[in-house]
Amino acid sequence: MGNGASSSNNGAPGHGGGESSHEIITGNGHDQGAILEASLMGHAEDDGLPNLAAAAVNSTSPFGDYFDFSIIDSTLREGEQFAMAHFDTAQKIKIAKALDQFGVEYIELTSPAASPQSRADCEAICKLGLKAKILCHIRCNMEDAKIAVETGVDGINMCIGTSSHLMSHSHGKDLAYIARTAASIIAYVKSQNIEIRFSGEDSFRSDFAEILKLYSLMDQLGANRVGIADTVGGATPLEVYEKIDALRQAIGCDIETHFHNDTGCAIANALVALEAGATHIDTTVLGIGERNGITPLGGLVAALLASGHEYVLEKYRVEKLADLDRLVGGIVQVEIPFNNFVVSA
Amino acid sequence: MGNGASSSNNGAPGHGGGESSHEIITGNGHDQGAILEASLMGHAEDDGLPNLAAAAVNSTSPFGDYFDFSIIDSTLREGEQFAMAHFDTAQKIKIAKALDQFGVEYIELTSPAASPQSRADCEAICKLGLKAKILCHIRCNMEDAKIAVETGVDGINMCIGTSSHLMSHSHGKDLAYIARTAASIIAYVKSQNIEIRFSGEDSFRSDFAEILKLYSLMDQLGANRVGIADTVGGATPLEVYEKIDALRQAIGCDIETHFHNDTGCAIANALVALEAGATHIDTTVLGIGERNGITPLGGLVAALLASGHEYVLEKYRVEKLADLDRLVGGIVQVEIPFNNFVVSA
Repeated sequence: MGNGASSSNNGAPGHGGGESSHEIITGNGHDQGAILEASLMGHAEDDGLPNLAAAAVNSTSPFGDYFDFSIIDSTLREGEQFAMAHFDTAQKIKIAKALDQFGVEYIELTSPAASPQSRADCEAICKLGLKAKILCHIRCNMEDAKIAVETGVDGINMCIGTSSHLMSHSHGKDLAYIARTAASIIAYVKSQNIEIRFSGEDSFRSDFAEILKLYSLMDQLGANRVGIADTVGGATPLEVYEKIDALRQAIGCDIETHFHNDTGCAIANALVALEAGATHIDTTVLGIGERNGITPLGGLVAALLASGHEYVLEKYRVEKLADLDRLVGGIVQVEIPFNNFVVSA
Repeated sequence: MGNGASSSNNGAPGHGGGESSHEIITGNGHDQGAILEASLMGHAEDDGLPNLAAAAVNSTSPFGDYFDFSIIDSTLREGEQFAMAHFDTAQKIKIAKALDQFGVEYIELTSPAASPQSRADCEAICKLGLKAKILCHIRCNMEDAKIAVETGVDGINMCIGTSSHLMSHSHGKDLAYIARTAASIIAYVKSQNIEIRFSGEDSFRSDFAEILKLYSLMDQLGANRVGIADTVGGATPLEVYEKIDALRQAIGCDIETHFHNDTGCAIANALVALEAGATHIDTTVLGIGERNGITPLGGLVAALLASGHEYVLEKYRVEKLADLDRLVGGIVQVEIPFNNFVVSA
């Protein structure tokens, strides 16, 4: 892999589906510094990508062994960034309860650091006692992390731009700075017995050899998940296969994916990501999100049902999808598309 | 390939984009019979599929060398099967002209054998003198072919069910019968200097080793194109890659693909098909068609633009897409989906 830090403390890649066996790293001392240095100093000699040629695909059972995955529904985070979404507290609670009844494993919320209202809503949803784990999005800084921990969430989805575009035009930090900051946040959040994910915004357009090094490091430092995001919706299925496969081989922790739908590939990319070893898929109800949105929950389920009917029916209450679509469509005042997906329970 | 008839009279696979160099076979005599027999008697020793592992994918230029493709817009055939579509002659002509102005290479029409009105409409559209080639759909029988030839179309898209399901429950014929009938139709249509495509309906769920044999035979007999259809919309991108790649290696003529969108993969599957060597992609405006439709023209263009901007802008007048969507949406009385694709010229 051309990656000096790719050995994982999780051993062989597995599809954990939520929990990883990392030890909690509570300090930020010399050893961690050494890991950081070793990880970031090395220059990759190639692009870090394995050849897709090496990864045989068994077309007879595309869904054969990757059903131990989780849905992270982000209607209350990504969906809140949809142009027409302005959820009040009661609406957020209604949506969270409906998602929980459907059976998504995770519900992702807007950062509680975004506003006093976001924080109050996050606390209110955490207190509902839902079966779904509650995650909140945060920027990669310790202050946001501390606010998030205080809300009572089950996990924190930390995110920072890793493409050269975002590094130079958004936050102005380099990968070494990102790694050092993320490391201390991972250590802190793990010390609070809360799940932590590290994700590079725009990571599909980032230098992928650097992403592999950075994510391997996050894995070693104890992140439960890394997230890879097609923030501009330009990834193609074969590119997704190649990159997720490379990531799966490089790290042991869980892999979350987030696909925008600008080119209409968000469902297909999610499926291919699962085939390549991703463990967590981000969705929103009706796919609402920035621009024309992300992988729609109903579409993902329709695609999954096409190949693994019984399992999906056991995992989710698919008969509730139509009501979910109507609930969210009504709140954001969009008509259900004429070509929306049909799932039959 | 386990396929005794896979050598093509077209030589190495190429992306012809419309015209093939087949000689016209006008007879139906002994030689053709021998080809039929040799093709259909052999039993494949494996599933006929190459290993995807053997097909390296260059992620840095996914659109590198397959831009010599054609769009076959089927709004006036597949789209006419949409639950809310009842086009009158004036509407058909308006849509055909708008598609032509956008720049699709082909416009596919409902079979002129379907009704006297379909025939009259087909003749009227042929007389418009559009730049786009006019195709009509027909069943695999000589009577339909003769009616089609008389209308003045540029090409004929012949179709018959090849899945065991359709063979036993729809037309009740076997592959040998299909091959014999198609062979005589190909010979006749080619003798009229008209393009001919052979397509297996539901071919993605058909015995693929048999499809490879049958399509190789059609290639040898002079078909300009073979068509492969995901009639129930269940194909996944990796399956598409594997099958189109196998087909591309087995035959020399052009390859048309038709993807339904039941699982939301119709755009992604079309892209992957192009990457694997398909030459023609079926679309409809807004994706209208049976159930929730097929690859939408606007979505395909959005996906193509994401990786090959200049070429697509040269090939099509993308600034006309929004008007096309509004025209067809208005006629079939559906609202443009809130998450419709945005393309900027």
